[in-house]
Amino acid sequence: MGKSSSETKACDFVLFGTKGDLARRKLLPSLYQLDKANLLHPDTRIIGVAKDAFTQEEFIERVTQSIKKFVKEDVCPETLQRFLGRCHYIGTNFTDVDGYAAFHKLLDSQSRVMVNYFATPPAIFGDICRCLHAQGLINAETRVVLEKPIGSDLASSKVINDQVSAYFDERQVYRIDHYLGKETVQNLIALRFANSLFASKWDNRTIDHVQITVAEEVGIEGRWGYFDKAGQMRDMIQNHLLQVLTLIAMDPPVNLDADSIRDEKVKVLKSLRPITMDNVFENTVRGQYSAGFLKGSPVPGYLEEEGANVQSNTETFVALRLDIDNWRWAGVPFYLRSGKRMPFKSSEIVIYFKNPPHNLYRSSYRNLPPNKLTIRLQPHEGVEIQMMNKVPGLEQKQRLQTTKLDLSFSDTFKNERIPDAYERLLLEAMSGNQALFVRRDEVEQAWIWVDGIIQSWEQSNEKPKPYPAGTWGPVASVALITKDGRSWDE
Amino acid sequence: MGKSSSETKACDFVLFGTKGDLARRKLLPSLYQLDKANLLHPDTRIIGVAKDAFTQEEFIERVTQSIKKFVKEDVCPETLQRFLGRCHYIGTNFTDVDGYAAFHKLLDSQSRVMVNYFATPPAIFGDICRCLHAQGLINAETRVVLEKPIGSDLASSKVINDQVSAYFDERQVYRIDHYLGKETVQNLIALRFANSLFASKWDNRTIDHVQITVAEEVGIEGRWGYFDKAGQMRDMIQNHLLQVLTLIAMDPPVNLDADSIRDEKVKVLKSLRPITMDNVFENTVRGQYSAGFLKGSPVPGYLEEEGANVQSNTETFVALRLDIDNWRWAGVPFYLRSGKRMPFKSSEIVIYFKNPPHNLYRSSYRNLPPNKLTIRLQPHEGVEIQMMNKVPGLEQKQRLQTTKLDLSFSDTFKNERIPDAYERLLLEAMSGNQALFVRRDEVEQAWIWVDGIIQSWEQSNEKPKPYPAGTWGPVASVALITKDGRSWDE
Repeated sequence: MGKSSSETKACDFVLFGTKGDLARRKLLPSLYQLDKANLLHPDTRIIGVAKDAFTQEEFIERVTQSIKKFVKEDVCPETLQRFLGRCHYIGTNFTDVDGYAAFHKLLDSQSRVMVNYFATPPAIFGDICRCLHAQGLINAETRVVLEKPIGSDLASSKVINDQVSAYFDERQVYRIDHYLGKETVQNLIALRFANSLFASKWDNRTIDHVQITVAEEVGIEGRWGYFDKAGQMRDMIQNHLLQVLTLIAMDPPVNLDADSIRDEKVKVLKSLRPITMDNVFENTVRGQYSAGFLKGSPVPGYLEEEGANVQSNTETFVALRLDIDNWRWAGVPFYLRSGKRMPFKSSEIVIYFKNPPHNLYRSSYRNLPPNKLTIRLQPHEGVEIQMMNKVPGLEQKQRLQTTKLDLSFSDTFKNERIPDAYERLLLEAMSGNQALFVRRDEVEQAWIWVDGIIQSWEQSNEKPKPYPAGTWGPVASVALITKDGRSWDE
Repeated sequence: MGKSSSETKACDFVLFGTKGDLARRKLLPSLYQLDKANLLHPDTRIIGVAKDAFTQEEFIERVTQSIKKFVKEDVCPETLQRFLGRCHYIGTNFTDVDGYAAFHKLLDSQSRVMVNYFATPPAIFGDICRCLHAQGLINAETRVVLEKPIGSDLASSKVINDQVSAYFDERQVYRIDHYLGKETVQNLIALRFANSLFASKWDNRTIDHVQITVAEEVGIEGRWGYFDKAGQMRDMIQNHLLQVLTLIAMDPPVNLDADSIRDEKVKVLKSLRPITMDNVFENTVRGQYSAGFLKGSPVPGYLEEEGANVQSNTETFVALRLDIDNWRWAGVPFYLRSGKRMPFKSSEIVIYFKNPPHNLYRSSYRNLPPNKLTIRLQPHEGVEIQMMNKVPGLEQKQRLQTTKLDLSFSDTFKNERIPDAYERLLLEAMSGNQALFVRRDEVEQAWIWVDGIIQSWEQSNEKPKPYPAGTWGPVASVALITKDGRSWDE
């Protein structure tokens, strides 16, 4: 269970890469929100680290700008003042051991736990760890929070994880997947295990198939070079979609402790049926957006974006059919898709239930629409059940209609601000709860499966299929699911 | 499936008791609505029968007044004109054979089916049948629609049914229970059999118990003498609540034909565990309202109402626990309650699902609230599922909350007027579809079970327990369910 700030030890929260986009847009505003909600220990310090030689005043000014710019609500002056009072700055080159000496003046390992947040390129995670160690800054309580991407395949992820694990035990390592901080993702466990309506119906006897869609409206947003090395498979599927998948598919954990949950999640990843050269074209579709229209305005294609290499074969869209070879899910396909430049932003999970064993309405409905459970992650977080009801009215004695029972989070929980995923994750890291962080074996199992697909694509040497920006991906992604007699949720 | 007016033969709809409350408030307005919806055959006639010697003009004037007074929406002048053009009147004493000679001039058995609606005291059903027969007005197509009460126990119901069946075959007899005409009651079949989410979970493995509540806000409404002979058990439980119960509890019918459905309903009634002297106090509570307050205003007790016999032991409230001794429902109690002068009008069915086999949240929730499905018959017809969700927010990591997924009929089907139950039932009777009417064996099975309870009450000679008007019945009705570790839905 979550501990309140009074039970949790104060932290020295060290933010490596404090000048970066993630820190400015997400981390500092989230820390401010935690402070506003009285969830930071009074003695907690926030120590920004970057290579510039800022004075304390310059740093405070930069933090203030981040908060004012990226906090959505009006900034509370008292909270801001308290928050800025926690902030300190250390300017050092991340690879310069001597520069880390400055920490000794600020840290207090007696009364505060050091939580290091690496909002830096993963290539230097190892260097930071080495320097912390060399200065004697690591003790058994010290934690590291790692931002993605942790490698670009199994081998490179092992290199990074090995570098960190040379200095930190797995129980000290917090790997971020910000999808795990989303309210509706956290709600998946309650939805599945606190509701008998679903708890007892969550397997291949009752579920026909599952769809997970993460559609982005944005394109490359000026990160062409970065993204082109990764592609949608590494950037979205390997982490976010597979993490959501594990929460949907896992067996009931022994309890709600971090490792009990992660034990079950990793079992799902181990059960993923490999996709190889033999079946890669049957089970996957790669796409790359071409020029098109988004909400009526023309937008360039991926190869026409600023900084683009026109020869690039990187995918901006993936659709795939995934099978989980275990007792619970045998015969139940999971269809995943994720792409950029889709018609609108939308993340959702849709559980399609099997049809009733017999169709009493067959004379009017050859196929009854199935019941489905939709879990919307964004926008408009909520839960929805589609069911069949009789249409009221005299002429329509047996006319049925699909209708929706709807639970919108923002409507239902009117008085509760829905916190940003990072607020939850930062709080958990500071409280020492690993349940919402990805364990090393999860990362590695996910890479094993993803590597198989990427290698098959590379061997085949086939280009990604073009799709116009503002559409739902290449036509082949429709064929992927319709050949199974199903269709993407609309 | 429903037939449109063009497929259905025209009717001579003969309304015995056309001056009565039911005809004025419900039947004539409903016939008007059917006409407005173009669901009456152009050649259909409506023939009012009463003992007064009205002229055609006087009758038309009375029909017009009924329509204008009891149709809720603005009356459409064209429809009214067309409707009045269908109306004819016959004045005769119902027991006077010669008076029925007048029908010969109006009826046309070649082109119209005679549908006789007996909105009269049941004591003269037999006389009307005899007179119709004596005048040769009955053929194989002729129908009778019978209003309740059909008897006050098994023996008296047999007398009435025998009198009718001397002249009409069961397939010509349409016994009204207006609850069967309600949209949400008709929707029960779709809800159960067109939704796999429920179809496969509708038994003692998944359902803990069921509650059916029909609460009336009104008291006696000037019918003291009539009601006092019946009581709430005969007036509400024997018909409406048991009918709803059969639709909730029945096995899947072979198809949606009238007799396939009624075959399954009667099986439920046959499976009701008898309530006898041995267990009547364990399983039933009788109440009678005393003076109290309704919405802040004082209201008299049952024994203080106009026309009351202060010695009356008639119940105005019944709560009972009912067991269905069959494979599907063994071990699943059904709790029924119905009363007058409750705090507000409300009819609903609540299905309580069993808890998940294991409580992962036991450290914070010793007992997880169960999932429940609520079917609201009135007011605000609709369907609702209660489930558990995580409360959004940072301090409430594992805080769960019961939340409702809601389907309001009037919100969802905005463009559809929800027809009155009588519109549906009159249309079905004129179309010759018996599915929404009660078969003789259903009536008799219901009486067998109800008679057992009433006889046990009479033998015990115990008075009904008083409850203040404006409350949910005697305290004992709470004990009835709490001793099973459950509580009435609120």
